[in-house]
Amino acid sequence: MIKSRAAVAFAANQPLQIVEVDVAPPKAGEVLVRIVASGVCHTDAYTLSGEDSEGVFPAILGHEGGGIVEAIGEGVTSVQVGDHVIPLYTAECRTCKFCTSGKTNLCSSVRATQGKGLMPDGTSRFSYKGEPIYHYMGCSTFSEYTVLPEVSLAVIPKDAPLEKVCLLGCGVTTGIGAVLNTAKVEEGATVAIFGLGGIGLAAIIGAKMAKASRIIAVDINPAKFDVARELGATDFVNPKDFAKPIQEVIVEMTDGGVDYSFECVGNVQLMRAALECAHKGWGESVIIGVAGAGQEISTRPFQLVTGRVWRGSAFGGVKGRTELPGYVAKAQTGEIPLDTFITHNMPLEDINKAFDLMHEGKSIRTVIHF
Amino acid sequence: MIKSRAAVAFAANQPLQIVEVDVAPPKAGEVLVRIVASGVCHTDAYTLSGEDSEGVFPAILGHEGGGIVEAIGEGVTSVQVGDHVIPLYTAECRTCKFCTSGKTNLCSSVRATQGKGLMPDGTSRFSYKGEPIYHYMGCSTFSEYTVLPEVSLAVIPKDAPLEKVCLLGCGVTTGIGAVLNTAKVEEGATVAIFGLGGIGLAAIIGAKMAKASRIIAVDINPAKFDVARELGATDFVNPKDFAKPIQEVIVEMTDGGVDYSFECVGNVQLMRAALECAHKGWGESVIIGVAGAGQEISTRPFQLVTGRVWRGSAFGGVKGRTELPGYVAKAQTGEIPLDTFITHNMPLEDINKAFDLMHEGKSIRTVIHF
Repeated sequence: MIKSRAAVAFAANQPLQIVEVDVAPPKAGEVLVRIVASGVCHTDAYTLSGEDSEGVFPAILGHEGGGIVEAIGEGVTSVQVGDHVIPLYTAECRTCKFCTSGKTNLCSSVRATQGKGLMPDGTSRFSYKGEPIYHYMGCSTFSEYTVLPEVSLAVIPKDAPLEKVCLLGCGVTTGIGAVLNTAKVEEGATVAIFGLGGIGLAAIIGAKMAKASRIIAVDINPAKFDVARELGATDFVNPKDFAKPIQEVIVEMTDGGVDYSFECVGNVQLMRAALECAHKGWGESVIIGVAGAGQEISTRPFQLVTGRVWRGSAFGGVKGRTELPGYVAKAQTGEIPLDTFITHNMPLEDINKAFDLMHEGKSIRTVIHF
Repeated sequence: MIKSRAAVAFAANQPLQIVEVDVAPPKAGEVLVRIVASGVCHTDAYTLSGEDSEGVFPAILGHEGGGIVEAIGEGVTSVQVGDHVIPLYTAECRTCKFCTSGKTNLCSSVRATQGKGLMPDGTSRFSYKGEPIYHYMGCSTFSEYTVLPEVSLAVIPKDAPLEKVCLLGCGVTTGIGAVLNTAKVEEGATVAIFGLGGIGLAAIIGAKMAKASRIIAVDINPAKFDVARELGATDFVNPKDFAKPIQEVIVEMTDGGVDYSFECVGNVQLMRAALECAHKGWGESVIIGVAGAGQEISTRPFQLVTGRVWRGSAFGGVKGRTELPGYVAKAQTGEIPLDTFITHNMPLEDINKAFDLMHEGKSIRTVIHF
């Protein structure tokens, strides 16, 4: 057992509590990681709110981290002590039906237990005063020390700043990957991006990397348009400026609709608007945002019969162990400008302020430093 | 003006009336076709029922025909008098934004007027006792003589039997094309087909052509399983045999879901089931059936975020002038066994019986002979 400072969510809708938890050593196939920094993502807030049907408490949240391997369990071969790593909430075992399909990044190797807040053997490595604390998304990066399955770690170069590239553990990679991997946006295509949070801004970067000819940024908060422009957006639409449905506005301004649209909010009405602003005959819409439990998307089937395609993307379709090092390299060259995303830095002790800033729409990403 | 025997739908939900209508000569870019035979399709019945929001009356229905060019209008170059043709409700102009996109068969050249029951110049060529009668789907094949835009005709070899290959004008091509063009089913894939009417049976043929490893035929009428088996289906599921939702049944019998599913009925609940029986990570579902006006599809966005793709298909994604001759050739060799579809033949005078047979589920296709 080692002692670890951690922000624990003891119950839904309560502030996190900074306490010292006990972390058990890694078992076979597992790795002990010292977290250096972690972003705070809307998904953490979503689970903390109690709306996440998979949410269990008490738990250590956080899934956008960067750290250093401290110890490895029996049989671990792909990482070594001292390696710099990014935890992956979408594992990559390279042997399951999904990994070997060549069609998806949704590895199934640790999915069942991860969804229950447990390690693959069905137990937790965290405890507080002798009572177990659940893991979260297989990562739990709001703890100074955490344990992950070997298949849930991407090894990255040691010269990459962990307090920045930690953002590649979720939002930034998700947005870019949805554009490049899921939609496969091609040069010259037109793109609409709904919601300019971290994922939406990252999708703009992805669209620019893909050399999209037009990148339409959509948000009800026009204060977000400046950074969107800086990242490469070419058009800016505030739905509040129009009486008609936003899909009609976009269809008109693009002579029939966009080639690709991305929903980056988690609002089922917006998911519909994103689909319906896609061009007849070939327009594709990708859902990235996570909707509230039980909420459903709907549209007239005619929208699909006339050639639109409705997709979704998880972690941007990115295979973490294979592809994340490439994302880190692009961050190192500045092609992925992570600094633009980091609006705040603070110590673990202030983590509840990070949630407040996010709820108030005042931050893109706050990075927690351990 | 020439006289033409035709089955006219004077009003919704009334039997067709066999009368002699007047047909005006083809204008510039138009072609006069003598219809030799025409299938009767569910879409004709759908429009006749009054549920089709685009339905206008009085009209001459029918869109699954085969005929011979009798006269051509000014400037027509791609067809000649005497050519054998299949009318296309999805035109192919080869010059519009859609045709030149390389991504869709949804030509826009005559779409606006066709949807209103008119020729491209905004008028009708049909009249009865001096009053205009509307065209239907740009085809109106329930008339001995009909007029179509040049771009709405596929020229086919003269040795192909028009009273059989007329079925390639809609249902058979739609089902096969949805599998080969829209879904692009690959060898070894697993497929589920919901609804064993003409389109569903054709989708089975398409899946067999694609060398799918497993073709699951789903229908609440087990009497349809024999012909499905004959065409290549390997598994047969009657939703009435199970208490649980049919998507769960199919997910269980396929260890996680099928690679591709096709909804061939027009039932929005079945469209949802078809999507949800597709495999996590890569399963794609294609909507082919036409739902009632105002009806909507829905699902949890999680279904898409976890890798399923929702598509639709119109006329099987087939570009009629370019691709239909190839379908005719496959019918000639027997690879597309049209005889299996033709359960009844009758003269125009009996056309209301064809609708009755269809409503009673007793026919796959009735071919009307002129």
